[in-house]
Amino acid sequence: MSNRSRPSVHPLDTEVPELREGAADDHGDPPDDTVIMKDVQGMPGTPAGLALRLFQFGFAAVSVAVMAATSDFPSVTAFRYLVAALSLQCLWSLLLAIVDVYALLVKRCLRNSRVLGFVAIGDGITSTLTFGAACASAGITVLIGSDLNNCAENHCTRFETSIAMAFVSWFLVSPTFFLSFWSLASR
Amino acid sequence: MSNRSRPSVHPLDTEVPELREGAADDHGDPPDDTVIMKDVQGMPGTPAGLALRLFQFGFAAVSVAVMAATSDFPSVTAFRYLVAALSLQCLWSLLLAIVDVYALLVKRCLRNSRVLGFVAIGDGITSTLTFGAACASAGITVLIGSDLNNCAENHCTRFETSIAMAFVSWFLVSPTFFLSFWSLASR
Repeated sequence: MSNRSRPSVHPLDTEVPELREGAADDHGDPPDDTVIMKDVQGMPGTPAGLALRLFQFGFAAVSVAVMAATSDFPSVTAFRYLVAALSLQCLWSLLLAIVDVYALLVKRCLRNSRVLGFVAIGDGITSTLTFGAACASAGITVLIGSDLNNCAENHCTRFETSIAMAFVSWFLVSPTFFLSFWSLASR
Repeated sequence: MSNRSRPSVHPLDTEVPELREGAADDHGDPPDDTVIMKDVQGMPGTPAGLALRLFQFGFAAVSVAVMAATSDFPSVTAFRYLVAALSLQCLWSLLLAIVDVYALLVKRCLRNSRVLGFVAIGDGITSTLTFGAACASAGITVLIGSDLNNCAENHCTRFETSIAMAFVSWFLVSPTFFLSFWSLASR
């Protein structure tokens, strides 16, 4: 266990080292034994991180709503899976958005390694499920629209809108996953 | 740029520090200015890394072969995409297997940060394409088999075999991607 980062939240008002490449390597030891974990916008507990979470939640919710509004989505397994996976994504993003709001309100920064590990694992699982569901549904929509030319009987536009929202939601989960993973590895 | 890892390959016979957690933090500076980048089995240039590459190549090749052997795969866009994505995966894994064989033969270790970055980006792209293609094809196979009950006219078993091999190939790319990314971040 590294003793460079304290295993608890700490006030943002203290001296926080800026993101400088190789800062730890130049000095050997941090000057005042405070955290050395880098504070990048987009990580948990930052305003950009909160914005990412809210956009993830919004796009996932729109995707679920559009897909659930079509009458014939339960007849296709992949569309049911899309609704389930994007609902999970909604819940996860909403939960972490609430945690971010709390961290911002009490002016604390979530740079704890346990929190980062939990966020990285959760983001990895939900983004894999979301991406898989979006790809499976996209394959079926392309099959209906291009291969079978059967869009007249199906709600192709609604399916495509829902799938596009799901891909955007996945695309917004990736930066939070990679930032958490990177900070965890570069502790 | 960190001066802890030399930007070139170096012989394996020199003293290589073992993977000890927090070794860099305890000492501040490495004792003899040699590399501090950790040497984990599965990374590029290790026997386990070579084995992973060969298995990735093998499963991807079997997946392409089984899918291409069915007569009606070009009628479905997702199956054509599966063949394309898994062919790319084949080429990438074969290329890196050759690099690994070379590194093992000349007893050099590929712990250069540029090599690791190149491998991490390439693995990330190919694994995303492979996973997306496998998910899209799986969605269509489930649609044909479970939702439409139309397996009698289609080669469902062959499709399923090919998709299962594609998922295994993706599953084997993930450790090499995460190991490269982790070593890159923990430089």
